[in-house]
Amino acid sequence: MIKVNENFLKIKNNYLFSDIAKRVNAFSSENQDKKIIRLGIGDVTRPLSPTIITSLHEAVDEMSKIDTFKGYGPELGYDFLIEKIIDNEFRPRGIELDKDEVFISDGSKSDTGNIGDILGVDNRVAITDPVYPVYLDTNIMAGRENITYLPCNKENNFVPALPKEKVDMIYLCLPNNPTGTVLTKEQLKVWVDYAKENKSLILFDAAYEAFITEENIPHSIYEIDGAKEVAIEFRSFSKKAGFTGTRCAYTVIPKELKGYTTNGEAVSINKLWNRRHSTKFNGVPYIVQKAAESVYTDSGKKEVADIISYYMENAKLIKAGLGEVGIETFGGINAPYIWLKTPNNLPSWDFFDILLNKLNIVGTPGVGFGQNGEGYFRLTAFGSRDNTIEAMERFKKLSL
Amino acid sequence: MIKVNENFLKIKNNYLFSDIAKRVNAFSSENQDKKIIRLGIGDVTRPLSPTIITSLHEAVDEMSKIDTFKGYGPELGYDFLIEKIIDNEFRPRGIELDKDEVFISDGSKSDTGNIGDILGVDNRVAITDPVYPVYLDTNIMAGRENITYLPCNKENNFVPALPKEKVDMIYLCLPNNPTGTVLTKEQLKVWVDYAKENKSLILFDAAYEAFITEENIPHSIYEIDGAKEVAIEFRSFSKKAGFTGTRCAYTVIPKELKGYTTNGEAVSINKLWNRRHSTKFNGVPYIVQKAAESVYTDSGKKEVADIISYYMENAKLIKAGLGEVGIETFGGINAPYIWLKTPNNLPSWDFFDILLNKLNIVGTPGVGFGQNGEGYFRLTAFGSRDNTIEAMERFKKLSL
Repeated sequence: MIKVNENFLKIKNNYLFSDIAKRVNAFSSENQDKKIIRLGIGDVTRPLSPTIITSLHEAVDEMSKIDTFKGYGPELGYDFLIEKIIDNEFRPRGIELDKDEVFISDGSKSDTGNIGDILGVDNRVAITDPVYPVYLDTNIMAGRENITYLPCNKENNFVPALPKEKVDMIYLCLPNNPTGTVLTKEQLKVWVDYAKENKSLILFDAAYEAFITEENIPHSIYEIDGAKEVAIEFRSFSKKAGFTGTRCAYTVIPKELKGYTTNGEAVSINKLWNRRHSTKFNGVPYIVQKAAESVYTDSGKKEVADIISYYMENAKLIKAGLGEVGIETFGGINAPYIWLKTPNNLPSWDFFDILLNKLNIVGTPGVGFGQNGEGYFRLTAFGSRDNTIEAMERFKKLSL
Repeated sequence: MIKVNENFLKIKNNYLFSDIAKRVNAFSSENQDKKIIRLGIGDVTRPLSPTIITSLHEAVDEMSKIDTFKGYGPELGYDFLIEKIIDNEFRPRGIELDKDEVFISDGSKSDTGNIGDILGVDNRVAITDPVYPVYLDTNIMAGRENITYLPCNKENNFVPALPKEKVDMIYLCLPNNPTGTVLTKEQLKVWVDYAKENKSLILFDAAYEAFITEENIPHSIYEIDGAKEVAIEFRSFSKKAGFTGTRCAYTVIPKELKGYTTNGEAVSINKLWNRRHSTKFNGVPYIVQKAAESVYTDSGKKEVADIISYYMENAKLIKAGLGEVGIETFGGINAPYIWLKTPNNLPSWDFFDILLNKLNIVGTPGVGFGQNGEGYFRLTAFGSRDNTIEAMERFKKLSL
């Protein structure tokens, strides 16, 4: 008799985005004359940049000719892309990596979800609250039941405190989704030191590092001394280069990083992931890897930086606009997310309904990311400039 | 302390293709004047067809404009592709499927590897021997230790017998890699009936179904009555349309299919995979799904059929050529693989060395796919016509 993995039955259904969709659909079907502005979902809206488009066309042409056609590529990624990543993302920050420490993948969601394959089920897992739901759900699927929540709220400036109990796996998303929080090198060093002392593993999700604008904010956890011994870093082209629908990311696993057997024997995590990735994955499309490579040309770099500036100008407008009407905001300086405290301590969903019904603006209720998100709300900078400006005009009419 | 998944330490390293590469490199560095013909690896060589190329260019152009740009797509695949798959692959064979029974993915290797996520660790697993190594390795990674091997050899015409002990998961790859075996509807019905009687799950890998040329050979397991209650089917564009470097596949999980909790409660496998796929995967690139869709246009269908005919003509030439020199072959009629009995019962690797050193032809030793592959050898039809013809000429000079 075929048995299922019963851990899947323990996952709570998260209806956040489907609940949002239901309420928005109900409203818009009754108010077809109203123009709804969507600042809810964290998805890019600007098209792929000209350099990336050119590179895609060229790669497609290669696939059309027998001499340049590409079949199976290396499962772990083409060297041409890995070299560009090391040269552009890490070496300028003083971080040296070998090519076999960078694994190309189809997305950070896949990698942060699949990384648990190579880790023991009895590890204790620390996640922040609020949090990107994939971290929690994938651990429950794997049967990890010991979860330590690290509250992040206005009182601690959204910086998680070290856990009181010893934890083995620590998910840190920095710049943070949903709160937009970043840590300084000194603040991040606290976590690296904790991990070294406790032989813990930090799962560092840096999907939004390209949005950092301030100095002294580390873009990579490996800017912290000793981090190579304790951290895996997840990076993505999704938000950096508008690849949410094009799919390319990478994960860094230094060879210094060790895990342990129950007997305390040290094992290379890099080797385990190499085995996992080459057995259960068959590489990212050649044309997509060529497109990702083009992000590191001179024109590519300029174009993606311009698009990020465009979004971050939206973020500034949102922060200023909300400030004018007396709403307290967080994030939005080094991240495309503005996390706001609801006026009058309104529950997140009540504020959602007010925005939808009175201002015809859609955002994301903070409580959808965890109970410490209650009374908070997330707006994104990924809208168009016009819509962002109009949304802020509408906020001026908000009366509670 | 971070613990690893110690099951990874139990996987035997399969050095098959790296061992082949080493021997080939050693030979060619000492014999630089010799032209080596590679009929070893199961990868396509013909470029993407004109219709697919046009569709890729058009989709890339869509990604360049704000009004047609695509960010995150549906995690489980775009309806435009799912509908075409149902209309072209299943409905003409009398199989009706709902859209949410077809899951688009980046490859059958990923799906056959990841499907174990939703299944219990204590299931007993049946695999054929020889076998595609991913089935075995991914089960060992997951901690499944109860493996039943189903020998396939000349004596049973490479058709596995039903297992003597009860098994819960059954991997069937048909048309088979590496042996090229197919089953008739009657033969496949034996397995469906077994699975229904024992509440087993059949994992049906149909990656090579497009190469079937004979009548009465099922292309889909759902052509067998009742199969929807017991089988998952894996399909791929890799070999059908030359997508090994472009990456698109799909997995069918009918809603009738149930798994069970240890208490015997029935659970929808479709719902579990939906949850797995949407939590640990973020969709196939839009441009790749558009390319896959174009396979089902009139011109696309004709072009991919022509390419498959090209390969299958190679297969015919190989079978005829080997027959002329008295080598017994199997497969190659409904599959791009020719499985051959080594002359004089030579061990697979000895035959490999003879082919390499005397004929400068590279193939794959059968023993690399399992101990029942010892004394067998795999050649593929994926070479160019000229190389295939030349290889057969060289075989005429083979003296053992």
